[in-house]
Amino acid sequence: MSRWEPGARERLGGAALDLYAAKGFEETTVAEIAQAVGLTERTFFRYFADKREVLFAGSELLEQQFVDGAAAAPNDADPIDVVKAAVAASAEYFPEERRAYATKRAVIIAANPPLMERELRKMSTLAEALVAALKNRGIHDPTATLAAQSGVTVFRVTFAQWIAAGNDRSFIDIEQDVFAELGTLTGPNR
Amino acid sequence: MSRWEPGARERLGGAALDLYAAKGFEETTVAEIAQAVGLTERTFFRYFADKREVLFAGSELLEQQFVDGAAAAPNDADPIDVVKAAVAASAEYFPEERRAYATKRAVIIAANPPLMERELRKMSTLAEALVAALKNRGIHDPTATLAAQSGVTVFRVTFAQWIAAGNDRSFIDIEQDVFAELGTLTGPNR
Repeated sequence: MSRWEPGARERLGGAALDLYAAKGFEETTVAEIAQAVGLTERTFFRYFADKREVLFAGSELLEQQFVDGAAAAPNDADPIDVVKAAVAASAEYFPEERRAYATKRAVIIAANPPLMERELRKMSTLAEALVAALKNRGIHDPTATLAAQSGVTVFRVTFAQWIAAGNDRSFIDIEQDVFAELGTLTGPNR
Repeated sequence: MSRWEPGARERLGGAALDLYAAKGFEETTVAEIAQAVGLTERTFFRYFADKREVLFAGSELLEQQFVDGAAAAPNDADPIDVVKAAVAASAEYFPEERRAYATKRAVIIAANPPLMERELRKMSTLAEALVAALKNRGIHDPTATLAAQSGVTVFRVTFAQWIAAGNDRSFIDIEQDVFAELGTLTGPNR
């Protein structure tokens, strides 16, 4: 077997998700994932540190999009506008063609408490990265933490609506409505 | 040794916290905690399921105060006012005389990633309890989740300020300012 397998990462990731959904995450072995796409366990471990990593490999990329989005906001942007820019940038990570995958992943994670805990920690790390990005712009606490956490809340609510059965709206459209709803809800002139 | 030990729970809890702070959570044994206050391991396990439970035994009570606070809000209260009532009720759990304990506990948890994960899960459970309380009042998603998560964000930011070195303001005073700041930050007329 050659060292380089075209599309191996994607094939392994797809097979893993199908098996986790069909058999359960705990019950699936790396050997089964590799076998499903005609590869070896050794090849699997060239792409992923472990079974969980298949589900969380994208988290760093998502975090980077948040941070880059915040960095691209105008210098004089208000804190909440920096956060809006960050969350809007993350929408690129969720095009329509990713929705079926994202939905399946969310169902697998919701069914397994340790995976759910890891997902919570990733959301916490995302908020911390956004707090750091805001502080880099001279925005202090408590404003930085409030703004960043509100951004992550909007992100999570948007994501839940985006993968909900029957949804046909884009991530960015939903996200803009959720930000508006947050403003109406918490604003002084509600 | 008699079955009933006056104040045993409080003495065990205090000794545990001192030992976790001095030696580290992982390095402390239940035997050491019990010994520090002249009790047996068996007595410890009559009050706490394990070492972690000493740190998280209050979480259900805090959650109940949130839920009771939400339930006590007027029938026609706006979603954010229900959440404010819930967070305000939780302030009873954080009187000035609890601040030294809360600070020590926070330092211990921040130093230990598995404890941090459990704390995150407790915050997530708290938000879910508040979402359920809002839905019981006929408030639907996404408003219920946005309002509940915003309440937990305000709670966490308030708590961090309350235990910060040099703080001498009460929990409720800080919390009201943080809610106002959130409104200014996210509101339509910022």
